Amino acid sequence: MKHERIYLDNAATTRTDPEVVKAMAPYFTETYAVASSQFSHMPGIQAREGLDRSREVIAQKINAKPEEVVFTSGGTEANNLAVKGTAWAHRRKKDHLICSKVEHNTVLHSCQWLEQEGFQLTLLDVDDEGFVDLTQLEKSITDRTFLVSIQHGNQEVGTIQPIEKIGRICTDRGVIFHVDAALSFTTLDLDVDRVQADLVTLTAHKIHGPKGVGALYIRKGTPIKKMMHGGYSEFDLRSGTENVAGAVGFGRAVELAQPKYVQYIRSLQKGLFEGLKKEIDGIRINGPKTLSKRLPGNVNVSFDLIEGESVVLHLDMKGISVITGSACFSRSLEPSYVMMAMGFSHERAHGSIRYTLSRYNRMEEIDIVVKSCKEVVEALRKISPLKG
Amino acid sequence: MKHERIYLDNAATTRTDPEVVKAMAPYFTETYAVASSQFSHMPGIQAREGLDRSREVIAQKINAKPEEVVFTSGGTEANNLAVKGTAWAHRRKKDHLICSKVEHNTVLHSCQWLEQEGFQLTLLDVDDEGFVDLTQLEKSITDRTFLVSIQHGNQEVGTIQPIEKIGRICTDRGVIFHVDAALSFTTLDLDVDRVQADLVTLTAHKIHGPKGVGALYIRKGTPIKKMMHGGYSEFDLRSGTENVAGAVGFGRAVELAQPKYVQYIRSLQKGLFEGLKKEIDGIRINGPKTLSKRLPGNVNVSFDLIEGESVVLHLDMKGISVITGSACFSRSLEPSYVMMAMGFSHERAHGSIRYTLSRYNRMEEIDIVVKSCKEVVEALRKISPLKG
Repeated sequence: MKHERIYLDNAATTRTDPEVVKAMAPYFTETYAVASSQFSHMPGIQAREGLDRSREVIAQKINAKPEEVVFTSGGTEANNLAVKGTAWAHRRKKDHLICSKVEHNTVLHSCQWLEQEGFQLTLLDVDDEGFVDLTQLEKSITDRTFLVSIQHGNQEVGTIQPIEKIGRICTDRGVIFHVDAALSFTTLDLDVDRVQADLVTLTAHKIHGPKGVGALYIRKGTPIKKMMHGGYSEFDLRSGTENVAGAVGFGRAVELAQPKYVQYIRSLQKGLFEGLKKEIDGIRINGPKTLSKRLPGNVNVSFDLIEGESVVLHLDMKGISVITGSACFSRSLEPSYVMMAMGFSHERAHGSIRYTLSRYNRMEEIDIVVKSCKEVVEALRKISPLKG
Repeated sequence: MKHERIYLDNAATTRTDPEVVKAMAPYFTETYAVASSQFSHMPGIQAREGLDRSREVIAQKINAKPEEVVFTSGGTEANNLAVKGTAWAHRRKKDHLICSKVEHNTVLHSCQWLEQEGFQLTLLDVDDEGFVDLTQLEKSITDRTFLVSIQHGNQEVGTIQPIEKIGRICTDRGVIFHVDAALSFTTLDLDVDRVQADLVTLTAHKIHGPKGVGALYIRKGTPIKKMMHGGYSEFDLRSGTENVAGAVGFGRAVELAQPKYVQYIRSLQKGLFEGLKKEIDGIRINGPKTLSKRLPGNVNVSFDLIEGESVVLHLDMKGISVITGSACFSRSLEPSYVMMAMGFSHERAHGSIRYTLSRYNRMEEIDIVVKSCKEVVEALRKISPLKG
């Protein structure tokens, strides 16, 4: 079966839209001054305008004010800033924070680092579909709690958390609510007021923007300390020469992320799930059974009796890019911590395959992927030492 | 005098070389996978190859090993990581660090933040040309000292510090030596072994590379803790999705930085200094008098009896981009801390103009700049309230 590379690793990163590259181009070779030189010369003013136009586009998408959007070097830095920045702002006053066991490791590791620094951390359990336990959340909040950090959609199994409910709980209890929306931005709606979110992590490269740029929404008045020192850029919340081209690309990517694509990706997702279930026996769906409760682009299944690693490598040889477990753990022999938290066996976690879709995928590709998976799974099962 | 915009703010940032943009292009729309997926699929391997080729180019330029080069989001993050990362690695063992009063504020503010965290900070004095006091340095090092951070070349007045001498002192005393080479990289040679540097900050956008990417050289074995948590990228020293396109652009920028350009920029620098001195009375040179002791692209002078701010704005109207004081302070009414450390009067500091050159500048531009400065200075002096 001859075909172009079928890229289904869009939760790791996406192809930069050529329109985004075009929007960035003049900011490399023409409008290249630093935005902070806006008070010194015209090229600085032009750079500032490009940066701030993008800030407005991004702010508008989440119903925020432009001055509440702080550009960072990506989702990782935004998550680090959200977690550590609020911790430092509360130090010697409050010392307890809460996140779930299935948060992205940029949140999880930041929280665990704070634990070493003397903070108290509560890790919320999730059920077998990956949903956070809200009763446990309510019980965990004390008068020492300053932050609850819960993602919008999960990176591995696509579970969409009930962030509006969590927002209400946090508001009621006077706790800062951080939403890591790196995986859901533009494919799921997020209105910071409706969700009652105080901090929201956004990133460009997962929505066909460039790598190396993201943003943290910071609701006006939220106590937070900067983590990157030196200079007063980004409302004195993030030092460093602004990545103007990157920010412009980010803004353009947001403009290009039309709602129609979500419908389209949903149809691919449905097609892939149905195709896999129809063609392959011994398959388990990881994450929510109800499609509307998982991220539009996410498909995650485990094949009984075989290793995900082998499936990934055989699909790669057939020109198809998928991953097993979490991308960040892909060389590790540890099973995915997300699946462990969901109560899965090691076998099921090791056997998991994540297919993540984007608007660049086509239904013909889905047919090829289903057919190729069937071939690979059948071939591997024949030689599997696990079979009974 | 009709002419294209003359950009002389190259110490703030530089025009991205079109060849750099060309090198980056395929990493946006073709080779866009995350480098950490190298064990899962071919697109990941290709991204990894691009990233690591760049790492080799950069390492070679400073005589380092590729695995000693950690990509960051820029010079700011590299400086933050160098200062705070070593501090955290030494906590509860050593608590004293040293930098100069004229360090870039990304180093200075990081050090001052550590001071709030309970560390001891010694700020070294500089003489009236901006050179660090080496006797004071030697006297300041104690058995509690873990870090000396001294820049290679100064951002405002271009002073080149005697980093080889400082390196010897640090090695003799068993102290980590961090060199902020953000302003000097590729225009001044830096061999990490000859300099005996343990950490070196590099950045792309000051050498015609893109904004949003830099690197920290970390000598093998240097105790340092990561500051950006979540995932194991960059030898587990900097989490986050690698900015592959940015890193590739950085590498290409290093390749394009030929030694011949340094000679050329030196000739422009000499021409600008001589032109200004010849045409304008009441002018003082800020920084080293000997050209070989200042960064190739740096020209900094003060005009008696007038404000730098006014000169900057009038030159901008004539299509010439320069700054007064430090770019990062350009809206502040505070005089430059660098010039204050050099013992200058407020008037002289406020009257300072920084012109910084790149290989894109031409000698004809220098002539226009000298002529325009003369006109502006003469006009401003006529209305100056400061004149006697």
